[in-house]
Amino acid sequence: MAVYTDITDAELETLLAGYDLGRALSCKGVAEGIENSNFILETERGRFVLTIYERRVREDELPYFIGLMQTLAAHGFPCPIPVPDRCGNALTRVRGKPAALCTFLNGLSVRRPTVAHCEAAGVGLARLHAAAEGFAGRRANTLGLAAWTPLFKGRQDAAARLEPGLDQRIAADLAAVAATWPTDLPTGPIHADFFPDNVFFDETRFAGAIDFYFACDDALAYDLAICLNAWCFDPEHRFSPGHARALIAGYEAERPLTDEERDALPILARGAAVRFFLTRLVDWERGADGALVTPKNPMDYARRLDFHRTDGLKAIL
Amino acid sequence: MAVYTDITDAELETLLAGYDLGRALSCKGVAEGIENSNFILETERGRFVLTIYERRVREDELPYFIGLMQTLAAHGFPCPIPVPDRCGNALTRVRGKPAALCTFLNGLSVRRPTVAHCEAAGVGLARLHAAAEGFAGRRANTLGLAAWTPLFKGRQDAAARLEPGLDQRIAADLAAVAATWPTDLPTGPIHADFFPDNVFFDETRFAGAIDFYFACDDALAYDLAICLNAWCFDPEHRFSPGHARALIAGYEAERPLTDEERDALPILARGAAVRFFLTRLVDWERGADGALVTPKNPMDYARRLDFHRTDGLKAIL
Repeated sequence: MAVYTDITDAELETLLAGYDLGRALSCKGVAEGIENSNFILETERGRFVLTIYERRVREDELPYFIGLMQTLAAHGFPCPIPVPDRCGNALTRVRGKPAALCTFLNGLSVRRPTVAHCEAAGVGLARLHAAAEGFAGRRANTLGLAAWTPLFKGRQDAAARLEPGLDQRIAADLAAVAATWPTDLPTGPIHADFFPDNVFFDETRFAGAIDFYFACDDALAYDLAICLNAWCFDPEHRFSPGHARALIAGYEAERPLTDEERDALPILARGAAVRFFLTRLVDWERGADGALVTPKNPMDYARRLDFHRTDGLKAIL
Repeated sequence: MAVYTDITDAELETLLAGYDLGRALSCKGVAEGIENSNFILETERGRFVLTIYERRVREDELPYFIGLMQTLAAHGFPCPIPVPDRCGNALTRVRGKPAALCTFLNGLSVRRPTVAHCEAAGVGLARLHAAAEGFAGRRANTLGLAAWTPLFKGRQDAAARLEPGLDQRIAADLAAVAATWPTDLPTGPIHADFFPDNVFFDETRFAGAIDFYFACDDALAYDLAICLNAWCFDPEHRFSPGHARALIAGYEAERPLTDEERDALPILARGAAVRFFLTRLVDWERGADGALVTPKNPMDYARRLDFHRTDGLKAIL
């Protein structure tokens, strides 16, 4: 949760003067998102989310994220829609930081997804991939395969401190993943952080997705592999075959996987687990670092790697 | 800002089953209030704030606060209105902690109140006092005069560390205030924390007040004295006679002060400054203590005490 940057009534008035949204009726900082500051802003014209981008987001990448949301929305995908100001710009500034106003998206995220939620999440992810087709923006995955070895460098000891021998196991994961990583799968814009807290439901129906600030070009099946890790393990980190089958079935109801994509899921999921283990390790080592957030435990992903090392996913494919 | 307690989708569903509010459409933790956890909850029936009461709030005192808000609302005062559940109870529990659902109150708080805001705040405070008249609940001011000496005990060194000699100055304030504290002023339920962040405006019109969890029985003029400290000093802690005159004028437009109340304002304001200096000193010493909040600087109130020691208020009365 965040709200690093505050906004005063005077700053809000200045901001809204640039938009055709009427005046502010209420504005509340929300404890959501760990990268940016977010406010629920009600104006005479409706309900919006004001996002102030903090240091982790590169300003030159914002047009990609904004453009992607605009493209998704234009193709009927439910996501926050960036609102242009009177000059047609969807990006503005608050207290010297880049900021954007987007429409408010209704829906609830779920803490413990059921099989039905997984199926709906699969449907939603496939719709996202379909709606993003043809988006002209380009952004390489800065947290993809090439980034993992540099991320791990200098952090072997930190891994070993978490669990004896974990440094060697992660090194072996890195080697195995690098040796067999698929390179010819269908690619396109992916969400890359389609976790349960970024996905909204209306009961068990998919209602939309938020937080596109890790989106990038990569293999579409890699996005599904990230979801297998994020949605299909229980709080004790045990794999749930029922959840995984439902997630994949939901995805394929909208976009059938190719044989190559299906075959690649185990290694993609192992790689995805390495990625989230490593970035969580970085955050864990750094501590909260001024953020109003408890770093997520990297060990959740070490447990997923235990599972992927046994090729456990194969049983359900 | 808070959100100490989280609420899951499952807990939310269980909670709403007890109310006639339809199902949840969205629920966001808000970074507001330092005592409790707050969520903006949108249901099929409207917009509400769910408050989960944390350790600082005594559960046996909640019926007083809830009853006061109900009374104020029944008399037309704009404040959050506690929503009874299907059994007629306005208090419920979430994750073992007491909780309440209230209506959402529109409005914006102001960071730097203008003279016009001060006048409107005065109007609002007087309306609150009028609307609370006849409320049957009783709650002594646990942070009133009798509490200050015990609060200061053992913290003299802490005060002296903030500023050399401050311990002796505060001790003299305590003695002076105790010697001349008025005891026969009109009393009734007071807000006791009518600070700019708890008061909402629609432009410069008073739109309502929130956060009644310091409310108690005390001298009505003491509530106004708290406001003189909170609204009428600039960010450099310089007194603004224009703001103070406007605050008092707004108050008197709704409820004229008696001569005794007016004469007592300087000592009441000095006492109010002692009260906020001391409670901030306690929080400052304790640190954030797990709360997602930066303690407020007690020195803001040491500066107000400098002003009150010179009887500065008298010039505008």
